[in-house]
Amino acid sequence: MLAKRVFNFSAGPAAIPEPVLKQAAAEMLDWHGEHLSVWEMSHRGSAFTSIIRQAEDDLRELLEVPSTHRILFMQGGATAMNAVVPMNLVNRPDCCRVIDFVHTGLWSGKALLEAPKYAQVHVAATSEDTQFTYLPPQDSWQLTEQAAYVHVCPNETVHGVQFHFQPDTGNIPLVADMSSEILSRPVDFSCYDVVYAGAQKNMGPAGLVVVIVREDLIGHAMTCCPSVFDWAHVAEAGSMFNTPPTGAIYLCGLILKWLKQRGGVSRMQRESIEKSQMLYDYIDSSNLYYNPVEKVCRSRMNVPFFLRDASLEDAFLAGAKQRGLVQLKGHRIMGGMRASLYNAMPIEGVDALVRFMSDFEGKRLF
Amino acid sequence: MLAKRVFNFSAGPAAIPEPVLKQAAAEMLDWHGEHLSVWEMSHRGSAFTSIIRQAEDDLRELLEVPSTHRILFMQGGATAMNAVVPMNLVNRPDCCRVIDFVHTGLWSGKALLEAPKYAQVHVAATSEDTQFTYLPPQDSWQLTEQAAYVHVCPNETVHGVQFHFQPDTGNIPLVADMSSEILSRPVDFSCYDVVYAGAQKNMGPAGLVVVIVREDLIGHAMTCCPSVFDWAHVAEAGSMFNTPPTGAIYLCGLILKWLKQRGGVSRMQRESIEKSQMLYDYIDSSNLYYNPVEKVCRSRMNVPFFLRDASLEDAFLAGAKQRGLVQLKGHRIMGGMRASLYNAMPIEGVDALVRFMSDFEGKRLF
Repeated sequence: MLAKRVFNFSAGPAAIPEPVLKQAAAEMLDWHGEHLSVWEMSHRGSAFTSIIRQAEDDLRELLEVPSTHRILFMQGGATAMNAVVPMNLVNRPDCCRVIDFVHTGLWSGKALLEAPKYAQVHVAATSEDTQFTYLPPQDSWQLTEQAAYVHVCPNETVHGVQFHFQPDTGNIPLVADMSSEILSRPVDFSCYDVVYAGAQKNMGPAGLVVVIVREDLIGHAMTCCPSVFDWAHVAEAGSMFNTPPTGAIYLCGLILKWLKQRGGVSRMQRESIEKSQMLYDYIDSSNLYYNPVEKVCRSRMNVPFFLRDASLEDAFLAGAKQRGLVQLKGHRIMGGMRASLYNAMPIEGVDALVRFMSDFEGKRLF
Repeated sequence: MLAKRVFNFSAGPAAIPEPVLKQAAAEMLDWHGEHLSVWEMSHRGSAFTSIIRQAEDDLRELLEVPSTHRILFMQGGATAMNAVVPMNLVNRPDCCRVIDFVHTGLWSGKALLEAPKYAQVHVAATSEDTQFTYLPPQDSWQLTEQAAYVHVCPNETVHGVQFHFQPDTGNIPLVADMSSEILSRPVDFSCYDVVYAGAQKNMGPAGLVVVIVREDLIGHAMTCCPSVFDWAHVAEAGSMFNTPPTGAIYLCGLILKWLKQRGGVSRMQRESIEKSQMLYDYIDSSNLYYNPVEKVCRSRMNVPFFLRDASLEDAFLAGAKQRGLVQLKGHRIMGGMRASLYNAMPIEGVDALVRFMSDFEGKRLF
């Protein structure tokens, strides 16, 4: 007998599709007749090897990753990658040791803060003047000639802004932290040279980070880069230079299979447009709630919103929880509320949220 | 209905206690009435906070970790820690930038190979002359005055040698990779200053590494150390400087609870003595099998053994699998066989292995 499940709006670790959790539970003691769990298999055996290769193949198919790019499964989250990316890229002979950053919110800011350990940083553009409610237009980005790379975060999980255009950085490699939007829409790998993403939002549990990198950028790690984070070692070993996070990769693989069955990334894109539009439309029509982000760059994944009367926040969260709508509290630096609408959030969840928000507002006669 | 489970002798990722797997399966869709899975909870919420703090408390209790030492949950495995440890320790003002290594097998060798990125290395002792079949006596260790630290691997997973004495390095901090023996016997924290251990052998799934470090050694990370691996940040944030591997920590916590119910580390020590003795006694009495390690330093966790007629190896592995005894193949650099006898391996498994080995030998009239 299954307990009733809630609608989970967490920004990450985030909702996992129920069929995936059910399959993981059913296979917990015996994976495919092997009479042992995935969680206790040697990563060198044929069973786990088939799991990791299938996950890699499915991710390549879903995102249409071209053969020019390698897919690496790593550890440490996007936060570790904020150091690992420069350690792997700034030492290339064909560039200078300057990294250009487009600063559009908390997560691009974290990458910007980490990089000076390894290179000179240059803020090519920023929207800090309004606390990140808009995106600096691309023609205002001041790029450095021969920069090692340009860093962007196309979806800012905390500030709720998202690129709805394809950046063009010419010959300078473009690196993107896509943690909170990966697999929610297609990626144009003719403009992105390195994409990294913590799995715990749209493709797995915490403890796994995926790096998709143009193969010809690999092989120039700085001496100080730990071997296990040198992309050349990881690529050569098929993401098994050391013991990979086997269970997290297995769960990621189940989610990728679920995504394929559901119609893949283009279906997820349509759904995320529908879900986010429903919520933004309601917010914009309301007298109680507001979202401060310019409409052209609002995120389809993470919708921060505020109550004009902040004293009502606790009542809002308590009422939402009573209706099975959880993890709606905003990030601690922002306050307010945030609804994350990743792939695993069904439209019924967004509908229930809007109905609750409307009832909550109606009762108070705004 | 439960499938019959095998006896899993993998060196890691390794057997997980069946009650733990059952509980994880039962809680997969609903943890403690929260109506969502641990795998999809925000790490900042009260539910996950209680899970990680309880795991930390239970580990402290089980290993009797004194208040002088901090417990950190990190990512990247012991292989990442082979870089992270020097990045955190060699910059201290009260030492020179030399690390002493006691080289006793593959894993101390890996630490030795990684460290020159960050400091000068000195081999204080080695048993490489016999391919690591003995331990260099402690009075032969040539320690460097004011070394940053001495590194040891008290149980060598691949070569099957284990310290059965407490090392004494005086005022020089002692650092130990205990991945394959942690929680199998008490640790004397009056001699160990830093202990690190990948969880995937005796305390969890892959994707989690535990670091237990004397607090006064924290706070001197090199500039090139990624923030997420700076122990000062990790300690200050209660192991949540960035998103921790939540599910792996949860499974680790369940294993720690199981260990406490089973009688803790002293009970595990007694059992591991009994299990390993049974297997070594049989091997030593046999004409077919042998173990090359000196008796005084044989590992109770990992028992490598060889068939005098190597052409029988495939038949041995196939016959073992038929009896439900799996993952017995030796490490690729050693060949032969290896039986890992971690805490989750019941004595019935070792008994079944010895009976099979005896039958296999008997049929061939050695």
